[in-house]
Amino acid sequence: MSLNNLGIVKRNIQRADKAAVERLSKFGVATIHEAMGRVGLMKPYMRPVYPGAHACGTAVTVLLHPGDNWMMHVVAEQIQPGDIVIAAVTADCTDGFFGDLLATSFMARGAKGLVIDGGVRDVKDLTQMQFPVFSRAISAKGTIKATLGSVNIPVICAGAQVNPGDVVCADDDGVVVVPAAIAAQVADAAQAREDNEAEKREKLAAGVLGLDMYKMREPLEKAGLKYID
Amino acid sequence: MSLNNLGIVKRNIQRADKAAVERLSKFGVATIHEAMGRVGLMKPYMRPVYPGAHACGTAVTVLLHPGDNWMMHVVAEQIQPGDIVIAAVTADCTDGFFGDLLATSFMARGAKGLVIDGGVRDVKDLTQMQFPVFSRAISAKGTIKATLGSVNIPVICAGAQVNPGDVVCADDDGVVVVPAAIAAQVADAAQAREDNEAEKREKLAAGVLGLDMYKMREPLEKAGLKYID
Amino acid sequence: MSLNNLGIVKRNIQRADKAAVERLSKFGVATIHEAMGRVGLMKPYMRPVYPGAHACGTAVTVLLHPGDNWMMHVVAEQIQPGDIVIAAVTADCTDGFFGDLLATSFMARGAKGLVIDGGVRDVKDLTQMQFPVFSRAISAKGTIKATLGSVNIPVICAGAQVNPGDVVCADDDGVVVVPAAIAAQVADAAQAREDNEAEKREKLAAGVLGLDMYKMREPLEKAGLKYID
Amino acid sequence: MSLNNLGIVKRNIQRADKAAVERLSKFGVATIHEAMGRVGLMKPYMRPVYPGAHACGTAVTVLLHPGDNWMMHVVAEQIQPGDIVIAAVTADCTDGFFGDLLATSFMARGAKGLVIDGGVRDVKDLTQMQFPVFSRAISAKGTIKATLGSVNIPVICAGAQVNPGDVVCADDDGVVVVPAAIAAQVADAAQAREDNEAEKREKLAAGVLGLDMYKMREPLEKAGLKYID
Amino acid sequence: MSLNNLGIVKRNIQRADKAAVERLSKFGVATIHEAMGRVGLMKPYMRPVYPGAHACGTAVTVLLHPGDNWMMHVVAEQIQPGDIVIAAVTADCTDGFFGDLLATSFMARGAKGLVIDGGVRDVKDLTQMQFPVFSRAISAKGTIKATLGSVNIPVICAGAQVNPGDVVCADDDGVVVVPAAIAAQVADAAQAREDNEAEKREKLAAGVLGLDMYKMREPLEKAGLKYID
Amino acid sequence: MSLNNLGIVKRNIQRADKAAVERLSKFGVATIHEAMGRVGLMKPYMRPVYPGAHACGTAVTVLLHPGDNWMMHVVAEQIQPGDIVIAAVTADCTDGFFGDLLATSFMARGAKGLVIDGGVRDVKDLTQMQFPVFSRAISAKGTIKATLGSVNIPVICAGAQVNPGDVVCADDDGVVVVPAAIAAQVADAAQAREDNEAEKREKLAAGVLGLDMYKMREPLEKAGLKYID
Repeated sequence: MSLNNLGIVKRNIQRADKAAVERLSKFGVATIHEAMGRVGLMKPYMRPVYPGAHACGTAVTVLLHPGDNWMMHVVAEQIQPGDIVIAAVTADCTDGFFGDLLATSFMARGAKGLVIDGGVRDVKDLTQMQFPVFSRAISAKGTIKATLGSVNIPVICAGAQVNPGDVVCADDDGVVVVPAAIAAQVADAAQAREDNEAEKREKLAAGVLGLDMYKMREPLEKAGLKYID
Repeated sequence: MSLNNLGIVKRNIQRADKAAVERLSKFGVATIHEAMGRVGLMKPYMRPVYPGAHACGTAVTVLLHPGDNWMMHVVAEQIQPGDIVIAAVTADCTDGFFGDLLATSFMARGAKGLVIDGGVRDVKDLTQMQFPVFSRAISAKGTIKATLGSVNIPVICAGAQVNPGDVVCADDDGVVVVPAAIAAQVADAAQAREDNEAEKREKLAAGVLGLDMYKMREPLEKAGLKYID
Repeated sequence: MSLNNLGIVKRNIQRADKAAVERLSKFGVATIHEAMGRVGLMKPYMRPVYPGAHACGTAVTVLLHPGDNWMMHVVAEQIQPGDIVIAAVTADCTDGFFGDLLATSFMARGAKGLVIDGGVRDVKDLTQMQFPVFSRAISAKGTIKATLGSVNIPVICAGAQVNPGDVVCADDDGVVVVPAAIAAQVADAAQAREDNEAEKREKLAAGVLGLDMYKMREPLEKAGLKYID
Repeated sequence: MSLNNLGIVKRNIQRADKAAVERLSKFGVATIHEAMGRVGLMKPYMRPVYPGAHACGTAVTVLLHPGDNWMMHVVAEQIQPGDIVIAAVTADCTDGFFGDLLATSFMARGAKGLVIDGGVRDVKDLTQMQFPVFSRAISAKGTIKATLGSVNIPVICAGAQVNPGDVVCADDDGVVVVPAAIAAQVADAAQAREDNEAEKREKLAAGVLGLDMYKMREPLEKAGLKYID
Repeated sequence: MSLNNLGIVKRNIQRADKAAVERLSKFGVATIHEAMGRVGLMKPYMRPVYPGAHACGTAVTVLLHPGDNWMMHVVAEQIQPGDIVIAAVTADCTDGFFGDLLATSFMARGAKGLVIDGGVRDVKDLTQMQFPVFSRAISAKGTIKATLGSVNIPVICAGAQVNPGDVVCADDDGVVVVPAAIAAQVADAAQAREDNEAEKREKLAAGVLGLDMYKMREPLEKAGLKYID
Repeated sequence: MSLNNLGIVKRNIQRADKAAVERLSKFGVATIHEAMGRVGLMKPYMRPVYPGAHACGTAVTVLLHPGDNWMMHVVAEQIQPGDIVIAAVTADCTDGFFGDLLATSFMARGAKGLVIDGGVRDVKDLTQMQFPVFSRAISAKGTIKATLGSVNIPVICAGAQVNPGDVVCADDDGVVVVPAAIAAQVADAAQAREDNEAEKREKLAAGVLGLDMYKMREPLEKAGLKYID
């Protein structure tokens, strides 16, 4: 009996509801994170490889070892249209685990993007292909193919837990993970939040202060805020 | 009697001379910093949220607590046209203290930009609005509204002291603080420096070496520099 | 007799074969690094000052002291058309050692670009001039001219050794150093690699999996990979 | 219905088998991590506040907000003798969430130690009390008590997932998490590993080479290793 | 007229009241910081060069340039018994600005210690001499003596403003700055806090929970905390 | 023909003169670095695993891949009494490449210590064995044995070049590399420096100021230093 689940590829995973994913893909990461109650974010060191990159899909996960991208080829086969690949590494490593060839393969499989807690390369090609990648580093450093990791097991990626089938959305502001079971509910909350924001934006643009719009003057005074001249 | 000045909003501050601010706004941060005698810079981790961002204005300061942006709404009311908001945090924190709604409000008040020793979000919107923001991080992480800070007290922001009313200029090269009392004098020195640079640039473009233009050959030889073949 | 080689400018260096440099300039950094057997890269903290920057040339080296750019003027005179300047610093320092005036001078001398393990400034100008610079930092902080370093001695720059005359190539993915003696051989290997990649890219785009194209299924099974449902 | 599980204290948790914890407490973190198949480690930035600190217990978890240690008092009540408190924070924060008063309380409750992905203070007192604490930072910075987190929910702490009741062991080498369900099995594997190491250590001390002891010469030659003079 | 105050040594400074310094020297940094209302701390990267180092004195300040320790000799002359030297650097630099010779000189002048936002060396000697030093780095790297800084001007050191004559206290938990004008008042507040803590410590040691001692149960319930089984 | 020198073990190397190594082992790293003209230091992130660690020997080098310590067993065989092992890694990696078993083997071979630009583990054992190790990190994370590196080739370790046979000295202040060819000369210069320091220390202890001892008053005045009251 195995103590860990390395060397395993899980083929059948339960993906989040397509309609919910579709709806979530319309919102920004900040909005979704707020709608979930301010949880689910990856660390802010995760950055898009080109400005304006945006991706939202169902998570297919892969666990890599530092300096080894063998499992990236294994995970490619498990991608279904609409998926986003989430790659975790067992130790901090900035090597370039992913480049234009793998991107070509991922796109051919219908992948929406890649989120990797490691490095990537061929940034110019990725930008031209408009394949959205979010990573902790950019590095030309190549990797080997020697050690087994796993595919579609739960992983910790950049400080957030991702279960296969969860919804992962990424944009210039960061990366957020929405558990599959609450995807529709979060989409509702995000919509409500966004509806609400449009109205607020208009008021603020007209010069209304947040102090008045959010009725903060009284609680601030109660907390002891003092105005002096 | 209070030991610190938390929980205070100073309403009337002495802003730097408008004409001096106007003149300073035409120079790059590097030029101004040199004109001041190589002081006044914030740490180089402060970066624009979009390339080419530029802002120059009179400082309205705010001191925040980690993970709490309540005072951002308080400072909004103190903004006058031509001001730039300088936000310090009492401990290192990358949370997203500021986004498109606050930017809308700040713009409506006439703010020239924001410099914050913390994180911001809604980068795509800020770019579209062309509201210049300089921050230590980008993060979708939301904040709460629970603790009092202060507005228009002297703050240390990214390693530089900022007094309310000082001139703060920011561009791709960094952020510089010009004390209000010497704003005109610094503008003069910056102008002199820039006048001088145009001529130098021409010479260098024509192939004249800095070694000759700056008459460095003799001091280099005196310092012991040796040429070998 | 001197214990170190500070204060020395070597005028005559053996530059890598021009034809080899020309050929190497057509490849990406990742390709060259792979063609060399995965060695020769600088640390991934070295980044272009604007997206899409690309430079390839023969190395003219300079060793600087923290906060002192005196030797940048000395190295300018040693630049020949087709050279790339490689600047190392004796201790970690993010100061702005280089800006638009030096860039003007370097361009007038025919430099292809600058790679510096320190900071630079005047980013807006460098972008407009399209002078490719790769650095560890951007900082408006000025430097002094007080201490001798050396020009055209072997240096360690961002973790890689560079000998004067070596080929250095830099793009969005990083910076790679090719020893002059093997420049032609590396160009051959890079070409072979690139020829090979075009075919692979086509197959992957058509939906062929890397698992099959690289014949990985058997070694993966041998290593113990297990598929579960 | 709540989208997240903030503001919750779970009172009854299933703790790992006491005998297994007792056995695991005898092994070093490196040994346990190897016995698990090289998984389960927290990031290496987690360091003991004094050299030689060692702790092993059943996890009681707490999720904190940056700059707020209110929940530390809530988790204290849930500590049972033999527990180790695992504190995660919703965003990176180095503030001092824990000091000698809380340590006194935790010790009175029978806690074996604290692992916190944030800062602590009163290092001198903690050392004198010999209360083992493992943290990402040391900071005198105090915290407030304003926002609800949760107790005994699954948390991500320094890159590792911890479920309430898991075994957590920490020493100078780092922190490892052993899922409760496999605690006994891991203890067996660790014991086997340790038994095996004693014999190896003796051989190596006698001058036998790892090359021979592990029979590496043939695989190294097969991989292409060449000896030259 | 000078734009900055580089190249200046202020000889006569107003030192904080001796009795207040004496009283503050008995408290830990965390206690003093709390007594001041949670302000005045330097960044937590400032660490003692040996465990248990403790220093408290009146600030004599010095502003250095990266890689240059000339002014350390200038500041030595301004030290009076009971002073602590606070050294800031105009840019981030880890070079070793201070070693056993300067420590010998500082001790001969009656200095209580050194706080430096840079590097130091001769750690073994400093430990044997028991001269308390708090720094951002340890480095054998030597410095030059070429550029003027200033002595006894206000400086920003590790994120905190220090005016000459302020009280600076440092221990294993960090470094705190007490403005001279409120030194006595802060000592009173620190004493009150410490008196109060002794009693609390006793209760907590006896098993009383902070939840009850601080009467937190009601506010927690009001905030929405829920206990589940 | 091979483009790089991976997969090579050089058996016969020219070690620095034993008498020079013996003499160098008596000096601190800072003294040796100064005696060499302020060059040859590794980056200051290299730290001893226990306070007071000190090592000096002739370099036997090894180049590792991230997460792979196979070559550590290969290098063990090349150790001769008086050697110090210098381990570089092809990419930044904090994994624990070395622990008590390898230390036992290295000691049995007569190694003086280990300098590694990666992580190590079994810190408690290494401390008890008093085997001096200097590393960039401490981590319980284990490594695999899958990829060839090389032994006794020139390497870049923590920013410094090390050729096999060079003298490497390490203590609490850092790590310095002395080229074999100048070892005796550097030992002479270090001795001269140390002789000179004893006298200076005495004077400084007696209250003589560096300003006077080094005759700095005139050059400081010339540079423009002004004393004000």
